[in-house]
Amino acid sequence: MSGRLFVIGTGPGNPEQMTPEALAAVETATDFFGYGPYLDRLTLRADQTRHASDNREELDRAGAALTLAAKGADVCVVSGGDPGVFAMAAAVCEAIDKGSAEWRGVDLTVLPGITAMLAVAARVGAPLGHDFCVLSLSDNLKPWSVIENRLALAAQAGFVIALYNPISKARPWQLGTAFELLRRHLPAATPVIFGRAAGRPDERITVQPLEKADAAIADMATCVIIGSPETRVIAREGRPDLIYTPRFMAGETR
Amino acid sequence: MSGRLFVIGTGPGNPEQMTPEALAAVETATDFFGYGPYLDRLTLRADQTRHASDNREELDRAGAALTLAAKGADVCVVSGGDPGVFAMAAAVCEAIDKGSAEWRGVDLTVLPGITAMLAVAARVGAPLGHDFCVLSLSDNLKPWSVIENRLALAAQAGFVIALYNPISKARPWQLGTAFELLRRHLPAATPVIFGRAAGRPDERITVQPLEKADAAIADMATCVIIGSPETRVIAREGRPDLIYTPRFMAGETR
Repeated sequence: MSGRLFVIGTGPGNPEQMTPEALAAVETATDFFGYGPYLDRLTLRADQTRHASDNREELDRAGAALTLAAKGADVCVVSGGDPGVFAMAAAVCEAIDKGSAEWRGVDLTVLPGITAMLAVAARVGAPLGHDFCVLSLSDNLKPWSVIENRLALAAQAGFVIALYNPISKARPWQLGTAFELLRRHLPAATPVIFGRAAGRPDERITVQPLEKADAAIADMATCVIIGSPETRVIAREGRPDLIYTPRFMAGETR
Repeated sequence: MSGRLFVIGTGPGNPEQMTPEALAAVETATDFFGYGPYLDRLTLRADQTRHASDNREELDRAGAALTLAAKGADVCVVSGGDPGVFAMAAAVCEAIDKGSAEWRGVDLTVLPGITAMLAVAARVGAPLGHDFCVLSLSDNLKPWSVIENRLALAAQAGFVIALYNPISKARPWQLGTAFELLRRHLPAATPVIFGRAAGRPDERITVQPLEKADAAIADMATCVIIGSPETRVIAREGRPDLIYTPRFMAGETR
């Protein structure tokens, strides 16, 4: 009989942002698969086994977890943030789609988590308060031309844009190029929010206008949110600016 | 001295999906503002005061909460889902932007929550596993022409599309019109997920191909997720289909 496979998200790293149902799955499971720093966020018992792997081995990791669950173990695949947003839930589905027939019989439960953009947005106000889109800026898995096309259409549509995987050692120029492209579509003063480790002790939130936005501020763990032309900045004495995108838009409504 | 204003999200309604930090804010606050059914999700003490209001009075509600916080009370504004996604955080920011100068001095903390699309996505696999966009289909606050333009550009861009506020008694035709528009851009078999009350006892998840997608399935509390041309459906014997959007796209990558 198949065991269970939980795919959970820890949220951005603050334990107070992890849901009780994800914590309950951690209690239940015997084996944990994930990128080492995400597994480090869990407090495991001596009878629970840690299977840490590198950040870029998602499909192999998903296959190993499915194999163990198919044998009857209760297994947990651990993502940062939400497992469904540029994370392990898609890799597990892909493994099931392409892999061993018995993997389809595994009792799979995906449990949602707080994804980075929600935690970053909360720290500055409500930049995602109206229509928005969410892109991975990594061209490891899709052509750069697709990314450029999506950025241009998103700006034309007036979406706020949340970028995941904005930069890495192997992808140093993509975020700067994305800013250049967006400068052709969006006002110079459009706020750009760089949110790193939101809600953690090492949190770093930086806001710059698009015209001066400096890609070097971002690292692998940064979520970048670029406002729309509607996004507003509220100055507050002695407090950080508040940034929000209004719920309404001028024009004829009902 | 100003009190504190917490803007929290309960998640989609399953108490196991509410974060510990949101629960801690509920412990702290004395006064609670929100739409009645969202306040019903909280267990309040006898010394805590409930200020329920109708669903469409967001700005008045935000002003009342800010006024009380400015007088020194610890106040909690309660959204369903995540407060930053088509919810109260933007209304509170808007009130601060336009309202009394003393509201800028209020100690404001927005706490993220599990927004509906993440909970719905988790129930079916990983439809938001690649680039996506998020739109409110309500033309109460923006022109319908803007919505149609955004839907068309989103489909052109290849985004998965998550729709909030898809339908209401006062807005009966918008979702059907959106499906018609999207049928001109997307394959007939594109999966459409209707997710209502995800994670709650009355949960109802329905999946239909776009060509047959029936807007009448949705109600006010439904989040609708429309796949991209890349989104895949995995049949599983004795289990519901899994739906996911792969992390990769064909084409030249690095």
